[in-house]
Amino acid sequence: MRVCIVGASGFTGGELLRILLQHPHAEVVCATSRKFKGEYVYRVHPNLRGVTQLKFVEPNLDVVLKADVVFLALPHGESVKWVPQLHQSGVAVFDLSADFRLKDPEAYVEWYKWPHPHPYPDLLAKAVYGQPELHREELVGAKLVAVPGCMATASILMLAPLAKHLGGVPPVIDAKIGSSGAGAEGSVVDLHSYRTYVVRPYEPVHHRHIAEIEQELSRLAGRRVSVAFTPHAVDLVRGIFATGHVYLDKLPTEAEMWRYFKSTFGDSKFVRIVKDKLGMARYPNVKYVLGSNYVDVGFELDARLGRVVTFSAIDNLVRGASGQAVQAFNIAMGFPEDAGLRHIPPLPI
Amino acid sequence: MRVCIVGASGFTGGELLRILLQHPHAEVVCATSRKFKGEYVYRVHPNLRGVTQLKFVEPNLDVVLKADVVFLALPHGESVKWVPQLHQSGVAVFDLSADFRLKDPEAYVEWYKWPHPHPYPDLLAKAVYGQPELHREELVGAKLVAVPGCMATASILMLAPLAKHLGGVPPVIDAKIGSSGAGAEGSVVDLHSYRTYVVRPYEPVHHRHIAEIEQELSRLAGRRVSVAFTPHAVDLVRGIFATGHVYLDKLPTEAEMWRYFKSTFGDSKFVRIVKDKLGMARYPNVKYVLGSNYVDVGFELDARLGRVVTFSAIDNLVRGASGQAVQAFNIAMGFPEDAGLRHIPPLPI
Amino acid sequence: MRVCIVGASGFTGGELLRILLQHPHAEVVCATSRKFKGEYVYRVHPNLRGVTQLKFVEPNLDVVLKADVVFLALPHGESVKWVPQLHQSGVAVFDLSADFRLKDPEAYVEWYKWPHPHPYPDLLAKAVYGQPELHREELVGAKLVAVPGCMATASILMLAPLAKHLGGVPPVIDAKIGSSGAGAEGSVVDLHSYRTYVVRPYEPVHHRHIAEIEQELSRLAGRRVSVAFTPHAVDLVRGIFATGHVYLDKLPTEAEMWRYFKSTFGDSKFVRIVKDKLGMARYPNVKYVLGSNYVDVGFELDARLGRVVTFSAIDNLVRGASGQAVQAFNIAMGFPEDAGLRHIPPLPI
Amino acid sequence: MRVCIVGASGFTGGELLRILLQHPHAEVVCATSRKFKGEYVYRVHPNLRGVTQLKFVEPNLDVVLKADVVFLALPHGESVKWVPQLHQSGVAVFDLSADFRLKDPEAYVEWYKWPHPHPYPDLLAKAVYGQPELHREELVGAKLVAVPGCMATASILMLAPLAKHLGGVPPVIDAKIGSSGAGAEGSVVDLHSYRTYVVRPYEPVHHRHIAEIEQELSRLAGRRVSVAFTPHAVDLVRGIFATGHVYLDKLPTEAEMWRYFKSTFGDSKFVRIVKDKLGMARYPNVKYVLGSNYVDVGFELDARLGRVVTFSAIDNLVRGASGQAVQAFNIAMGFPEDAGLRHIPPLPI
Repeated sequence: MRVCIVGASGFTGGELLRILLQHPHAEVVCATSRKFKGEYVYRVHPNLRGVTQLKFVEPNLDVVLKADVVFLALPHGESVKWVPQLHQSGVAVFDLSADFRLKDPEAYVEWYKWPHPHPYPDLLAKAVYGQPELHREELVGAKLVAVPGCMATASILMLAPLAKHLGGVPPVIDAKIGSSGAGAEGSVVDLHSYRTYVVRPYEPVHHRHIAEIEQELSRLAGRRVSVAFTPHAVDLVRGIFATGHVYLDKLPTEAEMWRYFKSTFGDSKFVRIVKDKLGMARYPNVKYVLGSNYVDVGFELDARLGRVVTFSAIDNLVRGASGQAVQAFNIAMGFPEDAGLRHIPPLPI
Repeated sequence: MRVCIVGASGFTGGELLRILLQHPHAEVVCATSRKFKGEYVYRVHPNLRGVTQLKFVEPNLDVVLKADVVFLALPHGESVKWVPQLHQSGVAVFDLSADFRLKDPEAYVEWYKWPHPHPYPDLLAKAVYGQPELHREELVGAKLVAVPGCMATASILMLAPLAKHLGGVPPVIDAKIGSSGAGAEGSVVDLHSYRTYVVRPYEPVHHRHIAEIEQELSRLAGRRVSVAFTPHAVDLVRGIFATGHVYLDKLPTEAEMWRYFKSTFGDSKFVRIVKDKLGMARYPNVKYVLGSNYVDVGFELDARLGRVVTFSAIDNLVRGASGQAVQAFNIAMGFPEDAGLRHIPPLPI
Repeated sequence: MRVCIVGASGFTGGELLRILLQHPHAEVVCATSRKFKGEYVYRVHPNLRGVTQLKFVEPNLDVVLKADVVFLALPHGESVKWVPQLHQSGVAVFDLSADFRLKDPEAYVEWYKWPHPHPYPDLLAKAVYGQPELHREELVGAKLVAVPGCMATASILMLAPLAKHLGGVPPVIDAKIGSSGAGAEGSVVDLHSYRTYVVRPYEPVHHRHIAEIEQELSRLAGRRVSVAFTPHAVDLVRGIFATGHVYLDKLPTEAEMWRYFKSTFGDSKFVRIVKDKLGMARYPNVKYVLGSNYVDVGFELDARLGRVVTFSAIDNLVRGASGQAVQAFNIAMGFPEDAGLRHIPPLPI
Repeated sequence: MRVCIVGASGFTGGELLRILLQHPHAEVVCATSRKFKGEYVYRVHPNLRGVTQLKFVEPNLDVVLKADVVFLALPHGESVKWVPQLHQSGVAVFDLSADFRLKDPEAYVEWYKWPHPHPYPDLLAKAVYGQPELHREELVGAKLVAVPGCMATASILMLAPLAKHLGGVPPVIDAKIGSSGAGAEGSVVDLHSYRTYVVRPYEPVHHRHIAEIEQELSRLAGRRVSVAFTPHAVDLVRGIFATGHVYLDKLPTEAEMWRYFKSTFGDSKFVRIVKDKLGMARYPNVKYVLGSNYVDVGFELDARLGRVVTFSAIDNLVRGASGQAVQAFNIAMGFPEDAGLRHIPPLPI
């Protein structure tokens, strides 16, 4: 299957290349970059030296449409310029931006500061929210997939098992994320000297991933769910760790919790429930998922206060972006769900 | 004033030395270590090379009692063996362990797994909980001070301004801490290869600092307060960042919040309220307090959900232990509260 | 092919598992650990959760000999107890320790402090030094392979192209290495708090990898070559960077240097010559090889002083140990040299 | 003494503020920044919150000349525009840039790519190279001081004791440096995601600090000395570690080495000779000097090859810049050499 990566010079573009260049059913036929057109991709992604002689090309519709499948690794607000034409011309589109994630056109005004509602509500309706474990059936044969946000992925997956059981207190999600979430452009606060040895919150009460998280949990719960979401920059390059603090009207037993988690994730190849009495990993840890498409989830019961604590750890660039995109692509195309995604995290790293 | 540090080879012992060797009103007359007796302290604390020719001595009461003031930097469960005699002999004692922090003798059974209640309830009653901003008056002239725990300090100070205003939902405290909190002995999970590139929870529902936090907040609130406390290991050596997620029955205005914080901390030299519209630091960050006795606190209002988010950042070895001990010592002895504690954090680091 | 990993609970054991569990021509039939026998391997290597249900078994000859191939990931001085019997019984042995690397039995007295010369000089003579790029022909069909040391690998490969051209001044090798080189046991200096934020030398004039480096460079040069080798601990978990400072009697031209490097490495799949005028990687960098079997080498000419500076970057646990072992295994067994070793480094990480 | 810091918004400007705001004999009367004029300095240097209410002012001669002493923390090529007027007007100038470090006006063409020789050879001649341990007498009363470069400081000090004993082979200096050396502006390679988990060389054969190092060592040796200098970016914010590999015609004894080092540094308050048989620090380590003005130096003898290995560790922003500037200022003004500079490194950090 011929695939093209639009916006291939950023971090998620680079990870798409890493994954798709070794994918048994994909052939990367183009990688676009306005800034680096004509340049070997390994000059921007030196990990790919010796792996490919591909060069970046100018992003342009003619070139892109030679592919069967297009991955859009563009900034928010850019994908929306590409999707309508691509979709109309029949290629399958996997959009890593937020531009088609939210079903409510008005939500883009509130959460993304667009001056007007989303201009393509019909496409919003068609787009599948590409969280594979929760939308597997819709993904089969999908032609337009909105790949979920990184922190949304970590948040949604650890709370999905509880969605139906939530009470009146909005769950608290306290997230910790590495620097690669800010992308390859970066600003002064992303400089190594400033971004090392930090723990600091940002957008602590109105982060835009809230919109996705509430959309998905509401869908699962069958009623409107709100979440209190506060992300923190921590000293990692990769990785997201999300902690859910959930007050429930009635605390489940541990056996019930296991049942909720197992019924949500079934025999998913990528979700690992980490809750152990022994060993190096009794709860999830970003260290154990790096470079892989795994989502490690776990929980603990706080009987004293009637609280469930849930955990999830993902690699934001893989499971939070490019790996998840490829997982959705595999399902859409009928390939084995883990084709090209069997990376085991190196440890220790 | 002649001071002795008992248990001077660990991290908090080392920081007591760093601070007290430059304190204008203290003379370090002994530093004990069973393991390193006879050895130059700079061989264990190489930062002190060239600063002092002091050697570790065997911990023994005769030597220790030559001092006017004793700082106990011993493991939990060890201080309780020293304090009664020291106290009786009239020296002032600043105990960095948990052994005299809790007022309820039974609490040691629940939170510290002691096989029996605390054997010295009278001393518990006498001991001042050495959180300077909240116990300044009691500290004056105190002869027995229980220096608060590191995560308790970060948690209590960011929630103290709200203590009287809490509603029915127990505040969530999500804490992030560096490796030095585990001390200089360490276990296999504290090895660099395992402790680097991590975010992982530990003791997520029953950490022992809960006891102190609830004791102090209850005192301030004038009623029983519970807290949901979940700490995480993150890739720092020093530093604690605590995030409070507090659902209030009635959300304060921003002006009220400022008033709560300012009235709690007055003109404290060490508490900085960090809430800015501009600049590198709009909220607290561990990076900006390293090596210092500062507590940076802040907050944000989540009007959408009726939540207050509070923040605090401290250096766990200074403000969470040795610096706070010296601050309490200064108050107790009538020295300027910041004597020996005017370290400005180096930046960037 | 049935393979057994003896000493599978350490870092190199874990990496052997990561690689061999996905190797198209290997089946891991046993993983031994005295300490963890009976335990799931994923409890010690949490990255393997969901990948395998294998359990550690007690190391014992009967079990091990059910395999066709044995990888020994044991401490120095332990392998020598296993190899004679294993070899005699006909299984192929890939020994990751130093016990069969040096051809001179006396060298073990000098460099490894053995109380006597190596007891099996005949096996030393038979053992192939498993540096694939330099011993590819000898490896074909080999039954006893001594996998080179991590810093030796980085050092030898960057200097091999110059071996025949060295002058009278011993090359200086200044190496920088991460904490995983110290293994999963560790000592107090390997604790995160002590091992973070460091640059410090160790064994600066008599590190035992010197013996291997000199042995190999002498072989290539056709005369006795000495090297001045000084390693430094730096704040990485994985990775070795070696810098060679080589004074030559006559400085080669840049074209000659390229020729030396290309003729040494031919079309090796794993050696990448990194020397670019543009892009993110003009010289090697540990960041670009993590998790992979690549060796990135490079050089620069210092015409002012008649010096060649050479560089190499490897992942010490992969190319410096387990990956190299599997590469040697592939050659020995007639598999494609990169079977099971096509990991592309994730970037950024 | 009234001091002004010109270029106070960068890293070295921030460290000058940290040091001088607590200096017993200095009063900071101005801190300039074109970019941040009118802004509180604590908004750029959040460590200074609560320490000072100073605001940045536009750099302009009238304001600056109200001070008795001016510290120039400007980029190379900018100081040269300020110094002539400042010097003429009689204020003492401590220039942290390279603009007055080299005695040979032509050297600026070779090493700094100036299109013409230095325009003020008379001022070059007057300027004191402000390496306090090597120019203490010249510094007394000096009115124009060129503060040495960070890597030059580390390099020169560890080789100074051997300068008179060097043979024909140019010493190799292999340096390792943190990200703060690149300054607060930074480029894409200085982003946290790119600058973390690295070891990579840069300017490996023609770094401009070579000019200073050779100038100073030649002066000490009484003959022309060349050095082979290769710096590496490592994953630190602060810190420089330099390793000298020195082939000598005749290897000194260990006693002679001690003598060379002691006679060079006398009873300097800031140079610590670290060479121990026991303890955590047998050689220098950047970890033990962070935040301080210490220079830790050490050595080892390689009798096998006739090599001396020398080491030095400094904090590049303190001893490599702002601290050294203040040390020079103290000497120049007749204050105690360590006034304002008695920071003990926090440990561990």
